[in-house]
Amino acid sequence: MQPIKILIINGPNLNLLGVREKNVYGSLTLEEINNKVKNFQYGYEVSIDFFQSNNEGEIITTIGESMYKYSGIIINPAAYSHYSIAILDAIRSVNIPTVEVHLSNIYKREEYRRKSVTAEGCIGVITGFGYFGYIMSVNAIINYIIEGSSF
Amino acid sequence: MQPIKILIINGPNLNLLGVREKNVYGSLTLEEINNKVKNFQYGYEVSIDFFQSNNEGEIITTIGESMYKYSGIIINPAAYSHYSIAILDAIRSVNIPTVEVHLSNIYKREEYRRKSVTAEGCIGVITGFGYFGYIMSVNAIINYIIEGSSF
Amino acid sequence: MQPIKILIINGPNLNLLGVREKNVYGSLTLEEINNKVKNFQYGYEVSIDFFQSNNEGEIITTIGESMYKYSGIIINPAAYSHYSIAILDAIRSVNIPTVEVHLSNIYKREEYRRKSVTAEGCIGVITGFGYFGYIMSVNAIINYIIEGSSF
Amino acid sequence: MQPIKILIINGPNLNLLGVREKNVYGSLTLEEINNKVKNFQYGYEVSIDFFQSNNEGEIITTIGESMYKYSGIIINPAAYSHYSIAILDAIRSVNIPTVEVHLSNIYKREEYRRKSVTAEGCIGVITGFGYFGYIMSVNAIINYIIEGSSF
Amino acid sequence: MQPIKILIINGPNLNLLGVREKNVYGSLTLEEINNKVKNFQYGYEVSIDFFQSNNEGEIITTIGESMYKYSGIIINPAAYSHYSIAILDAIRSVNIPTVEVHLSNIYKREEYRRKSVTAEGCIGVITGFGYFGYIMSVNAIINYIIEGSSF
Amino acid sequence: MQPIKILIINGPNLNLLGVREKNVYGSLTLEEINNKVKNFQYGYEVSIDFFQSNNEGEIITTIGESMYKYSGIIINPAAYSHYSIAILDAIRSVNIPTVEVHLSNIYKREEYRRKSVTAEGCIGVITGFGYFGYIMSVNAIINYIIEGSSF
Amino acid sequence: MQPIKILIINGPNLNLLGVREKNVYGSLTLEEINNKVKNFQYGYEVSIDFFQSNNEGEIITTIGESMYKYSGIIINPAAYSHYSIAILDAIRSVNIPTVEVHLSNIYKREEYRRKSVTAEGCIGVITGFGYFGYIMSVNAIINYIIEGSSF
Amino acid sequence: MQPIKILIINGPNLNLLGVREKNVYGSLTLEEINNKVKNFQYGYEVSIDFFQSNNEGEIITTIGESMYKYSGIIINPAAYSHYSIAILDAIRSVNIPTVEVHLSNIYKREEYRRKSVTAEGCIGVITGFGYFGYIMSVNAIINYIIEGSSF
Amino acid sequence: MQPIKILIINGPNLNLLGVREKNVYGSLTLEEINNKVKNFQYGYEVSIDFFQSNNEGEIITTIGESMYKYSGIIINPAAYSHYSIAILDAIRSVNIPTVEVHLSNIYKREEYRRKSVTAEGCIGVITGFGYFGYIMSVNAIINYIIEGSSF
Amino acid sequence: MQPIKILIINGPNLNLLGVREKNVYGSLTLEEINNKVKNFQYGYEVSIDFFQSNNEGEIITTIGESMYKYSGIIINPAAYSHYSIAILDAIRSVNIPTVEVHLSNIYKREEYRRKSVTAEGCIGVITGFGYFGYIMSVNAIINYIIEGSSF
Amino acid sequence: MQPIKILIINGPNLNLLGVREKNVYGSLTLEEINNKVKNFQYGYEVSIDFFQSNNEGEIITTIGESMYKYSGIIINPAAYSHYSIAILDAIRSVNIPTVEVHLSNIYKREEYRRKSVTAEGCIGVITGFGYFGYIMSVNAIINYIIEGSSF
Amino acid sequence: MQPIKILIINGPNLNLLGVREKNVYGSLTLEEINNKVKNFQYGYEVSIDFFQSNNEGEIITTIGESMYKYSGIIINPAAYSHYSIAILDAIRSVNIPTVEVHLSNIYKREEYRRKSVTAEGCIGVITGFGYFGYIMSVNAIINYIIEGSSF
Repeated sequence: MQPIKILIINGPNLNLLGVREKNVYGSLTLEEINNKVKNFQYGYEVSIDFFQSNNEGEIITTIGESMYKYSGIIINPAAYSHYSIAILDAIRSVNIPTVEVHLSNIYKREEYRRKSVTAEGCIGVITGFGYFGYIMSVNAIINYIIEGSSF
Repeated sequence: MQPIKILIINGPNLNLLGVREKNVYGSLTLEEINNKVKNFQYGYEVSIDFFQSNNEGEIITTIGESMYKYSGIIINPAAYSHYSIAILDAIRSVNIPTVEVHLSNIYKREEYRRKSVTAEGCIGVITGFGYFGYIMSVNAIINYIIEGSSF
Repeated sequence: MQPIKILIINGPNLNLLGVREKNVYGSLTLEEINNKVKNFQYGYEVSIDFFQSNNEGEIITTIGESMYKYSGIIINPAAYSHYSIAILDAIRSVNIPTVEVHLSNIYKREEYRRKSVTAEGCIGVITGFGYFGYIMSVNAIINYIIEGSSF
Repeated sequence: MQPIKILIINGPNLNLLGVREKNVYGSLTLEEINNKVKNFQYGYEVSIDFFQSNNEGEIITTIGESMYKYSGIIINPAAYSHYSIAILDAIRSVNIPTVEVHLSNIYKREEYRRKSVTAEGCIGVITGFGYFGYIMSVNAIINYIIEGSSF
Repeated sequence: MQPIKILIINGPNLNLLGVREKNVYGSLTLEEINNKVKNFQYGYEVSIDFFQSNNEGEIITTIGESMYKYSGIIINPAAYSHYSIAILDAIRSVNIPTVEVHLSNIYKREEYRRKSVTAEGCIGVITGFGYFGYIMSVNAIINYIIEGSSF
Repeated sequence: MQPIKILIINGPNLNLLGVREKNVYGSLTLEEINNKVKNFQYGYEVSIDFFQSNNEGEIITTIGESMYKYSGIIINPAAYSHYSIAILDAIRSVNIPTVEVHLSNIYKREEYRRKSVTAEGCIGVITGFGYFGYIMSVNAIINYIIEGSSF
Repeated sequence: MQPIKILIINGPNLNLLGVREKNVYGSLTLEEINNKVKNFQYGYEVSIDFFQSNNEGEIITTIGESMYKYSGIIINPAAYSHYSIAILDAIRSVNIPTVEVHLSNIYKREEYRRKSVTAEGCIGVITGFGYFGYIMSVNAIINYIIEGSSF
Repeated sequence: MQPIKILIINGPNLNLLGVREKNVYGSLTLEEINNKVKNFQYGYEVSIDFFQSNNEGEIITTIGESMYKYSGIIINPAAYSHYSIAILDAIRSVNIPTVEVHLSNIYKREEYRRKSVTAEGCIGVITGFGYFGYIMSVNAIINYIIEGSSF
Repeated sequence: MQPIKILIINGPNLNLLGVREKNVYGSLTLEEINNKVKNFQYGYEVSIDFFQSNNEGEIITTIGESMYKYSGIIINPAAYSHYSIAILDAIRSVNIPTVEVHLSNIYKREEYRRKSVTAEGCIGVITGFGYFGYIMSVNAIINYIIEGSSF
Repeated sequence: MQPIKILIINGPNLNLLGVREKNVYGSLTLEEINNKVKNFQYGYEVSIDFFQSNNEGEIITTIGESMYKYSGIIINPAAYSHYSIAILDAIRSVNIPTVEVHLSNIYKREEYRRKSVTAEGCIGVITGFGYFGYIMSVNAIINYIIEGSSF
Repeated sequence: MQPIKILIINGPNLNLLGVREKNVYGSLTLEEINNKVKNFQYGYEVSIDFFQSNNEGEIITTIGESMYKYSGIIINPAAYSHYSIAILDAIRSVNIPTVEVHLSNIYKREEYRRKSVTAEGCIGVITGFGYFGYIMSVNAIINYIIEGSSF
Repeated sequence: MQPIKILIINGPNLNLLGVREKNVYGSLTLEEINNKVKNFQYGYEVSIDFFQSNNEGEIITTIGESMYKYSGIIINPAAYSHYSIAILDAIRSVNIPTVEVHLSNIYKREEYRRKSVTAEGCIGVITGFGYFGYIMSVNAIINYIIEGSSF
């Protein structure tokens, strides 16, 4: 059986993880998080690629090009979650199950961070569990693909 | 090592799962979901109790009484998520890590279902993954307790 | 031909009818209204049960249990009309034609009483006709069931 | 005893009933509805006149002239319900009990159709019961006149 | 010197004055008001025509045709003040000084009566002085024409 | 017969009239306006006092002290119109017929100038007629006092 | 092949074109525009009728009667675009492809002119191109009919 | 002279006082507060009963049943203050002077805690004085009953 | 033991008490209220000074100067409560426990009177108890000072 | 006579046309659309360049560089229409007539797609006509340039 | 060459600087700030007067009287920035270049402090730089006067 | 002593300065401004680098990379100020004192330009002083670094 191919996209400023506002986002660097996610035992073979960009347009292009290449996308659009209708359109354009993940619980933050326009295009959202949210997202995609949907 | 004790609380109308609007909430009954959650292999010993009520007051009382009895709470407040400040207060009152879970992705639904007032008191939220969201929630609590927090 | 079985649910404070703010809600007690509704000649055999509760959760439970037992529900959710998404969910969960009724004309009252979230799950709404609104509701359900729908 | 004289006013586009968006408004023409309403056995002698206009001004004039000629008005202001303060003023100007009726349940439709400015001047509103709503309105007026009010 | 020609336009339901809600609008009929306005001694020769219509379109047409025929317009758009952008456009289209007048003080009434979209096209507004507001409006137009503007 | 005693209150910055933004407020100074108002032939004996202050508190005090001394107040609250609930309270406290006047038409200006909170306490409002608005206000008070009210 | 029959409807105040606010709407009269539109070489035989009314009700009636008579409607609802749900309903009622056109670019004007409630019922909207917008609209309808839709 | 009978109702989560968020609500338990309130010397004989419930419906029922049994009600509706129109209705239904009390100053807290819908039915509100607020409320009711009202 | 020194500040129009809108504010004059407050037996020695001003600036200055002179402030900012951020700043600037008091229950009044911006700087608010609210405020300050805080 | 040089800019995700949500955007690829637009017979010589980017910054740069190179710009900003004030600024910066075009009718879509901030800088907008909208846009620019403006 | 005469106006509560909320406004007294501002070497001769008032009216009067006496005004309207349209009017009335300055960065504070109505009348705003903001303001005025404007 | 290293970042369309809308932004090119800023005598040695980009992502990356390289950042985010939460996050991520500067006074422009989301992360904002605002910003950073903060 073939491994499930997943693309993890991290949005603006996440390259600064472990440096930036540690009380909100934790002290792990993005590379450390990626390693944890890659090395986790999922009980199912997965192949994970990572992409980070501060650039809305590059994220859109990457999503567009992922069609036919990946079975699932995990995206942390960071600040773009709150206003990028263009990324929402990109997610909808490619027919790939997508999970949105946030490190911190967006419901505990400023009013303008409590809504997500990109989430409207995803199968689900995971928010507040730090690096572990990425691992949960991988599990969610495996489960989604194997069962068809989770219902 | 002692098992982690978790209480799963399901809110109004979730007793009707598997009957009600299957296109939105899926065809599993609540009992079938509970069994799946109970029998999942978490790689760590957990003991899970289940509670369902249509009644805002009973949910509040149950949360209040869970102090000292449980290490984690998983709550699907259903419709109460959107307006029950009283349940939010209950969650904040007891000092237990709590995860909010929704079967459907609330960001794809009516405007008034896209916000959660109860989520403000939780460590995180998982929305859109059907029954599997409960399993993810258990994993999240295990991870949270073992690592202290996920950051 | 079998009688049509109808459940009439009255929400919070309606047990105080005939006592409470008579200039708004009239001087009939709930029991007097129920008797008028029961004894009216509908030109069609109906069997009517009555339920009153101040408790959002009990109303939800009662609606959930009415499945397979009743052909129609008439509900006066009183103040819960304006904010109980949970009762709306209950109405949608059971597949029974439901009519919402209010004693006073909600469009003549405070701004926050002019909207109904529960009405979204009903076939129709009757507001402003006092006790006679319940009789009209019974007629509406008879007509709805006999004709399939009223269109 | 004299028959109760009632005027039924239908607003814009209702002349197209049975043609227009049948899934929303049903397949009966306005004339067919009027005949059903006229021929219904109300258990009380009523004399019903019908008036339809697409024109806000004509509706206002007709309401103004109905004073002293009718004991009750039934009005389906259609789209004008949502913004015609002028029709509201007309209803308030003549001292005749008026019932507002809508074929479809306005609470299930677009946000801008969920409010009614004209309803503020009526004794009550009936919405969602198709042609039968007119018959219910006639009954409501009979009951209102005989009992003084329904309380 | 030629008399100043003024057109007074009264909008919807004002034909019912003296009948309708006397506590708000007073007990004079429109004809009685018109006579008072016509017979007042302005200290300057004026010729006043009167027009009343319940019909937004007729009011617009009348304003459009008043160009070259009148030196001033006095308009009580009644309920249309609050939403008729079309009448506002008509007022702006013809280059005639226009005064908006209301019998009652719109600032003491329902929230939706406190704004006027038509007033944006007028030189000024007079509200709350009953029939005398029309006489004040005539004076204002005389003063405006003689002095060019009032500043 | 005794002259009617009227107090004209001008609010903040009106002492700068004739200097300040002439394209909006005209080129007359406040003293020139006052002289025009004083010397106008009203056809009825009036005695007019003038008061100007930039100070919300002084305006409130002056209104409070006008009780028993004046039969009418004319007030141009200028910018205070838009937010001084305290001046509104002052107007309501003394039982004297009060007219609010503005030099420019507030409906043609910035959004935040289109509402008046002080107008709620006045018998009426005159806006847009420059200095002549004060003369109209005096006429309105004379008419109001002689006829009791204008209806 | 038969010519395509098109009805062009112009709403309130457009009879005053060439007179009214030329800096906004241009200096052509409505008749001059109509002639330009009629005489344009579309490369396809079209037969165009013109209708102008200031009256919301007449516009609704005309749309209703256009069924079976026209293959396409072009409408410039002018000010009614911004609030006439009744015209929207009329457009939806008849099953004819309809194009909404505005002379000026509504996005450059007052806030309340930037939304169109009638556009919701049209296949598309053209705004800001003066008389040429009508010619474009005819082209759009020809293209729409010949290709089925433009996609 | 008979003692004044007062019922003190405490709403959701107040059973957790002294445990829950002490920095906001203080360290006294509800029982300790009740004892302080009971044992205070009011200079007037009072008899006080206590009722606590997390349940909106039970609070409504208790208020309804207090009629004829108590001369005054003191209610701390906690979170229900902010949305329970049903409790507001209950307070209005029984004709008993009611005082609303909050431990913390709601004006210093989250935006959604700064409004109270239940307060609309009370004679007054006391917020921010901790346990002492209950004692002040008893004093307020004594004063209200003895003087008729406090004005 | 030294008496507790308290300053009572009354804001705009309260000098007119006993004259102004008695149905809302009662028939006592401010002096009569002050005497009642002064002569009340608090069971603890207090020394009370009174200050009334219609002037926002004077109230701010008085609060600023009260530092080191008073142990507590009681303020009825009247209409300024609803918009004076400047008075809020003054209260926060001096580190003195302050109680806000209103004669009428602001939750029963116009929408714009239901919020208080000044309350954000106070320890608590008492609203709706007429003159007795001042006495309660004195008690609250005594209790606050003796116990440190009321929790 | 020289050909008119036009630049057509397509924004985010439009590179996916013909793949993405065909029910909304049609089945033509962007290249197919471009060919149709290039090969259309405009009756006037035009030279058209095409540019597509998912990147807000690149679109801005391209608009900035078009100055002196093109006589007209046609832009489909896709999702950026709804929030990119930066693209609006770019359009305003270069003094080139610009037409905004959308494939689907934005008035029939989600609330957040019904407004366009970029349209404020364009001469006009064409929305809902699929690929044909680009051809209409070219015609509009030709007409605009030849006639100076369309009025 | 003559020195540039500048007036620095400080609004409500700024007399308490160095005392009040030091964590927000710093520990310098107003006098210490004034001395720093006066003694700074601007490289250009300036003469600076200082004025502080808690009183909206006095600030307005002072601005009005500054005409012809000063070449520039620096104003810290403190809390009045957020609602005093009257001070905005004063700034606009006198034709003197005015700079608004705030000690703290208003964009980091409560929502209601993030807007400034007075800033609309100033040439620019400086916020967040403590006492140094005043020195920057003086520099800005010097630069503005010497260069005519800064562009 | 080492020079202070400052990075000046200019956002979208600022490369077009001196070309674009000169009445709003002035006639200096960006290079001319940069030269003025570089050559100004600050009385303290500074080393200034300049960066301009139309691209939100590049600006974010540049801010992220400035850590450890610069002691201060001056940013004119232009249109991105009004919606780029992503740039706000970048500013917060690096721990460098940042000043926001705008050429024009944003408080005098369109409603949507009057708020800044990026300002929330800066020490202060300078708006309305043209090129001189950059020089003031450099001074502000020098002062901030030397004094620690400006308070």
